[in-house]
Amino acid sequence: MEIEVFRLGHRLPRDERISTHVALVARAFGASHISYSGQHDSGLEDSVKRICASWGSNTPAGDSFSIKYEKNYLRYLKMQKDAGFVIVHLTMYGVPLQDALEKINKSSKILLVVGSEQVPREIYELADFNLSVTSQPHSEVAALAITLDRLMEGKELKTFDFKGRLRIAPSEKGKLVIENG
Amino acid sequence: MEIEVFRLGHRLPRDERISTHVALVARAFGASHISYSGQHDSGLEDSVKRICASWGSNTPAGDSFSIKYEKNYLRYLKMQKDAGFVIVHLTMYGVPLQDALEKINKSSKILLVVGSEQVPREIYELADFNLSVTSQPHSEVAALAITLDRLMEGKELKTFDFKGRLRIAPSEKGKLVIENG
Repeated sequence: MEIEVFRLGHRLPRDERISTHVALVARAFGASHISYSGQHDSGLEDSVKRICASWGSNTPAGDSFSIKYEKNYLRYLKMQKDAGFVIVHLTMYGVPLQDALEKINKSSKILLVVGSEQVPREIYELADFNLSVTSQPHSEVAALAITLDRLMEGKELKTFDFKGRLRIAPSEKGKLVIENG
Repeated sequence: MEIEVFRLGHRLPRDERISTHVALVARAFGASHISYSGQHDSGLEDSVKRICASWGSNTPAGDSFSIKYEKNYLRYLKMQKDAGFVIVHLTMYGVPLQDALEKINKSSKILLVVGSEQVPREIYELADFNLSVTSQPHSEVAALAITLDRLMEGKELKTFDFKGRLRIAPSEKGKLVIENG
């Protein structure tokens, strides 16, 4: 299964940290790539690249985690749809995740779209699925994490091998980071 | 099961949105209360109260979702520990969530602590469990959502009844909000 994430309408400085969290969740929970539209942000890209350099970029699909700015989100999403990706837009207004999961799981290529403040109408139309996690207002970071968790069937918790220079040795009270020779 | 969340070391303006996401995830995923330390932030409290006023504050434990500033986090956490709460600190360095879940589930009162940049050593010591979601760097918002999801056994996805003035009628393409008489 190949999973991409698209972050719509990134705004500086407002979305700086939320978009970083979205990107890091994408990586840690098994996606292969994140694209974003809105304002170009080399700080965001550098943060993601720094994490990949230290903690690894190998993805469960076997490629290397990447981040890329896409000025024209609509063109990109249409292109990916034509390339066989099922477009899943996460919105509190959508159908419950658990009701659509079986259908989505039939696809081997999934593009998860997370919005910022106001998502253009055309995204709702373009999406194959508009999907909600709880039907309550909360966080696109949480919605993405839960959706990826369900798509990965919880396997992300058992730690994918990111082939990073650093990895954590789980510890009851301390901080134990192992550096590869 | 009674669940509280504690957000450590809130900083303005840096944590404004992340802490709001933490608080809204706490509410949407079944916690009853959130406390926070660091800088007092009436904007954060107002955001949470506004969401509760519109979308409801009824929690699965049967009380009303609330937010409160606690200047002295250590005193508060010790007090709650004495009151029977098991203290669960979410940190990338901790033991895997899935390995400790069974033990944590034996408690009827759980306090989930989420940190900001640098968490004081004493929190690691005070915690009954230092818990990690994936052992990779990502987001306290995602870690909280996944932990609550596991504690709630996914029931939060089927929409708790928050008894709000507004609720969403899930929709395939649009936005449908129902206002109670």
